[in-house]
Amino acid sequence: MFKSEVKIRVRYAETDKMGYCYYGNYATYFEVARVEALRGLGLSYRKMEDEGFVMPVLEFKIKYYKPAYYDDELTIETTIPNLPQTRIFFTYKTFNQEGVLLNEAETTLVFVDKNTMRPTQPPKEFINKLIPFYKEDV
Amino acid sequence: MFKSEVKIRVRYAETDKMGYCYYGNYATYFEVARVEALRGLGLSYRKMEDEGFVMPVLEFKIKYYKPAYYDDELTIETTIPNLPQTRIFFTYKTFNQEGVLLNEAETTLVFVDKNTMRPTQPPKEFINKLIPFYKEDV
Amino acid sequence: MFKSEVKIRVRYAETDKMGYCYYGNYATYFEVARVEALRGLGLSYRKMEDEGFVMPVLEFKIKYYKPAYYDDELTIETTIPNLPQTRIFFTYKTFNQEGVLLNEAETTLVFVDKNTMRPTQPPKEFINKLIPFYKEDV
Amino acid sequence: MFKSEVKIRVRYAETDKMGYCYYGNYATYFEVARVEALRGLGLSYRKMEDEGFVMPVLEFKIKYYKPAYYDDELTIETTIPNLPQTRIFFTYKTFNQEGVLLNEAETTLVFVDKNTMRPTQPPKEFINKLIPFYKEDV
Repeated sequence: MFKSEVKIRVRYAETDKMGYCYYGNYATYFEVARVEALRGLGLSYRKMEDEGFVMPVLEFKIKYYKPAYYDDELTIETTIPNLPQTRIFFTYKTFNQEGVLLNEAETTLVFVDKNTMRPTQPPKEFINKLIPFYKEDV
Repeated sequence: MFKSEVKIRVRYAETDKMGYCYYGNYATYFEVARVEALRGLGLSYRKMEDEGFVMPVLEFKIKYYKPAYYDDELTIETTIPNLPQTRIFFTYKTFNQEGVLLNEAETTLVFVDKNTMRPTQPPKEFINKLIPFYKEDV
Repeated sequence: MFKSEVKIRVRYAETDKMGYCYYGNYATYFEVARVEALRGLGLSYRKMEDEGFVMPVLEFKIKYYKPAYYDDELTIETTIPNLPQTRIFFTYKTFNQEGVLLNEAETTLVFVDKNTMRPTQPPKEFINKLIPFYKEDV
Repeated sequence: MFKSEVKIRVRYAETDKMGYCYYGNYATYFEVARVEALRGLGLSYRKMEDEGFVMPVLEFKIKYYKPAYYDDELTIETTIPNLPQTRIFFTYKTFNQEGVLLNEAETTLVFVDKNTMRPTQPPKEFINKLIPFYKEDV
């Protein structure tokens, strides 16, 4: 199972008048977390797009337990529980600098061929980088 | 059952390099939809906050069927399926100007007393405005 | 001289922990104001882009006098002081619902041909719609 | 003269349909740059707010030379040209990973006492940390 961690600091722009990190910002944070997870595997999402793939989000769910505050340094733990096929599933846990779990989320994305705009298998390089993490599962 | 509709136009700032309305913007759109739904009832969320209530989001789920594009005029249909207690549940459907259903979502929020920061019953005025829509259910 | 007005309500997402509308949101508001100004002239910026023009911003200046707050209904007064050539200049004044001037800003944009990515003259339709507002100046 | 550098990677959420980093995001980037500049001095903006100071922006100017693109790793060079008094002036230069200058900007902020909401002198600690960088100028 592939796991990755990324740190994101809450910007002033991302706070709201309640003093919380606005609940809508996590979608952006998880996008950053996904991209950095791929980068950790040696994969560039930017290059994937340049090579003709896009990965729109099909589904997003999040449960908020505690708010994050301005300047908090969040750790987002990203997991890809299964080897992806046309669809790829990610789960996320957000912790603050005290180690408190702030929220848990999941997203489903789909690999799409930019030319046909139809679902497609993930790039070979993508699967090859992930396979070692799922050996025991196969 | 209380239903409300609000129109939101996709801003340039809200598009992404795929040409889509970025998937994370809907959380903001639904917040606008909630506030306008309340305004349609004669309730001001701003005033509610001034009077000591805040309504953080506990849970958010969304399924994306089709993207919205720049300058699309979206219609968001907001429903409060049940008379709220400490928690209030909203469902949303987003349509584009051709009437195509783009996504469906739901949020759970909680009424919180700003002084104690503990869950609380909704303001009386809030419930009184909503009750007529749920008479048959009672 | 062409003038236009648009109303924009401050969203919760756009507030910050100071309780203000975050200073960076005005760039987005002015983009909306520009697009609505063009729409008022019978011009669609979306259609212009589809037809091969883009209008990146070259310069942006803003002076903040007073903050806007959550749920404020702002009026943005947009002016095109001169008939545009390759560059187009806009000025903006933002007022709140009490008529208080909150800020003044200006932007310079350039018409760019999407294929060559080089500066170009504005579309004929664009100039034709604007000319009547500058007759005396010619 | 105090100078500082911070790296910021362009998020997918921050791109627009032109494929550029949206022009309005730089206000947020410069806020991050300011806060990290202060952190580099051993100062926490968060703590300053907790201790009763806020620093609203009075003026913001930016000239855009070249766009940034998705996943670009930008370097923002922040300078405080003069020892601040009630007002503090920052200048910024944004470079991409190829060292190309993308834009130049400046902001004026004011120290405000949170209780009175009136302009005030900067906190002593703030000035003490900065003084060594301006010795020759005095």
